[in-house]
Amino acid sequence: MKIGGVAYRTIWPAQDGWRVTVIDQTRLPFRFETRTLETAAQAAQAITTMIVRGAPLIGATAAYGVALAMREDASDAGLEGALALLAATRPTAVNLHWALARMRARLALLKPRARAQAAYAEAALICDEDVALCRAIGGHGLAPIREIAAGKRAGEPVNILTHCNAGWLATVDWGTALAPIYLAHDAGVPVHVWVDETRPRNQGAALTAYELGAHGVPHTVIADNAGGHLMQHGQVDMVIVGTDRTTATGDVANKIGTYLKALAAHDNGVPFYVALPSPTIDWRLSDGLKQIPIEERPAREVTHLQGLGADGEVATFRIVAPGSDAANPAFDVTPARLVTGLITERGVAPASRAGLATLFPELARGEAA
Amino acid sequence: MKIGGVAYRTIWPAQDGWRVTVIDQTRLPFRFETRTLETAAQAAQAITTMIVRGAPLIGATAAYGVALAMREDASDAGLEGALALLAATRPTAVNLHWALARMRARLALLKPRARAQAAYAEAALICDEDVALCRAIGGHGLAPIREIAAGKRAGEPVNILTHCNAGWLATVDWGTALAPIYLAHDAGVPVHVWVDETRPRNQGAALTAYELGAHGVPHTVIADNAGGHLMQHGQVDMVIVGTDRTTATGDVANKIGTYLKALAAHDNGVPFYVALPSPTIDWRLSDGLKQIPIEERPAREVTHLQGLGADGEVATFRIVAPGSDAANPAFDVTPARLVTGLITERGVAPASRAGLATLFPELARGEAA
Repeated sequence: MKIGGVAYRTIWPAQDGWRVTVIDQTRLPFRFETRTLETAAQAAQAITTMIVRGAPLIGATAAYGVALAMREDASDAGLEGALALLAATRPTAVNLHWALARMRARLALLKPRARAQAAYAEAALICDEDVALCRAIGGHGLAPIREIAAGKRAGEPVNILTHCNAGWLATVDWGTALAPIYLAHDAGVPVHVWVDETRPRNQGAALTAYELGAHGVPHTVIADNAGGHLMQHGQVDMVIVGTDRTTATGDVANKIGTYLKALAAHDNGVPFYVALPSPTIDWRLSDGLKQIPIEERPAREVTHLQGLGADGEVATFRIVAPGSDAANPAFDVTPARLVTGLITERGVAPASRAGLATLFPELARGEAA
Repeated sequence: MKIGGVAYRTIWPAQDGWRVTVIDQTRLPFRFETRTLETAAQAAQAITTMIVRGAPLIGATAAYGVALAMREDASDAGLEGALALLAATRPTAVNLHWALARMRARLALLKPRARAQAAYAEAALICDEDVALCRAIGGHGLAPIREIAAGKRAGEPVNILTHCNAGWLATVDWGTALAPIYLAHDAGVPVHVWVDETRPRNQGAALTAYELGAHGVPHTVIADNAGGHLMQHGQVDMVIVGTDRTTATGDVANKIGTYLKALAAHDNGVPFYVALPSPTIDWRLSDGLKQIPIEERPAREVTHLQGLGADGEVATFRIVAPGSDAANPAFDVTPARLVTGLITERGVAPASRAGLATLFPELARGEAA
């Protein structure tokens, strides 16, 4: 997507053919800066310090980290060392381990001198595949946006509410929940996005607002509290969110607060869509509320917040009464009964076992056995 | 309620018998400071600059403002000038105009030399009546808390979620939604309060957390997004919130985001109570969603936030991506169908016309005519 009129991905090989450049997301939204990675250690550090974040982007960065390692030391020991180093960065990240396993499978049987070139090619392929996956999700999600637009007067925007950041900054390009929105905007379908700020980490106010603004998509930031009121007054035409994990029955785990928006959408007859690449479906699970463990994150994410001071410096502030503690569950589960449709790379499915099995018969069968 | 073991009200006459002292709420939660008011102009300024806030406290401050004015100039012109000055501070505040009308009615027919003493007595009466009203609400709200406590193991706390600040800092003492909680705590019923931070102005994280902490009531601050998840997992026994305006049919306008918590409570079978003094019932209204206008407040309340920096200074900082705009509806309406009960000074009523009419027959009749 574009920043200042220039098309970017979140990660790309530098012109010299071996260094890797990423957007430093710890500096967003107040500064746009890139970082150049020259070693596997730097790639690992970029992941741990959240210079890069978002499951697909973490996987892509790890893949390029292996490529950088092969340039330094393409021996078996060098390969295994790099895989271990990168695997330790975010132990629970599924995409990370998937990408590393794929790199090992591609490289282990090659002669060391062939490994660096193959690693760069495989990392590039992982990136391109992610872009294609997100682009396909966008294409399928565009259909319901067009349908709503068809019922409006010319020029009247489709109002779409989103929560957290499931945009291109979390992937290599396009994003998941935001992909249909970018496609609609680029196709000239007028859209306006209500951006939930998404406390406590404010990924909406910081990242979603930033990336929509940089690409030129009309949007308005709102407190997480405001969405229900807007739906009651007909100001939201549809909701699209992402997901971290989806059950085979269509229950959806996503950023904390998603469930509240799904309830409000249901109460007001607003379509509620979840965009997801099929690898986030956990075919073993049938009850999201009982089976998906919810990460409890540090209280400091609630009690403190980062912002831009009047002096132009980015700093961290305490916003909760001193002495008061905080709880910070990071995700919640939205039951399938509240989900209008799951937007996948193969099409839009009803949020049910039958709906998902129709689109992914080979996966649904495999796990049911 | 107590701060550091000392019992306070939010406003009280100084020991000299004429100055008036208030807690400076613009400095909370990071500083506890009081301000002494010596003139009607200072009382007016305390209201406009939000040194005092909360409808009942604004009314009480205006009443004492008239008393201060009568000490300076008790002539008819002096009285009318003070009433006009104070009325202009917060044009839409119902309690403010009610308190000023009451002061005029009490003073206008008195000889000027009798006015100052009568004004101080009337202001004190307004304060004492507010305390009694809140105390009565607390008494009636204590019953459902005790009922839940009776079903728990000894020592296990009743978990109560609240939104925004309907505590003693918004009134003269006790508060509305928090009054039952203070009474329960003081009576030895173990309670624990989930405090919604209440974006955008963070009255929960700042004021509710502060006053609960200062009085010693166990509590935990959460992002507004977290309440639904906690209810899904049985961690909320009941919800108690305040209200700014209630229809004769039991629809409730309260701080933005209240509706989302009511939906989650309904979806999870959690009792949802609204505490209110009867003057907040607007007997002319029958459809809150259609008839209650919702104030749109400045975008800056969403894009910027006040906090305590590492240097110990309180400052304002930007948290939304530069260039992105924000919308800020300040209240939402929770339909009566989602409300378990209305806790008033006369008892707990079902949220319906019949329920309210049973408790307030003389008021319900008057308006229905």
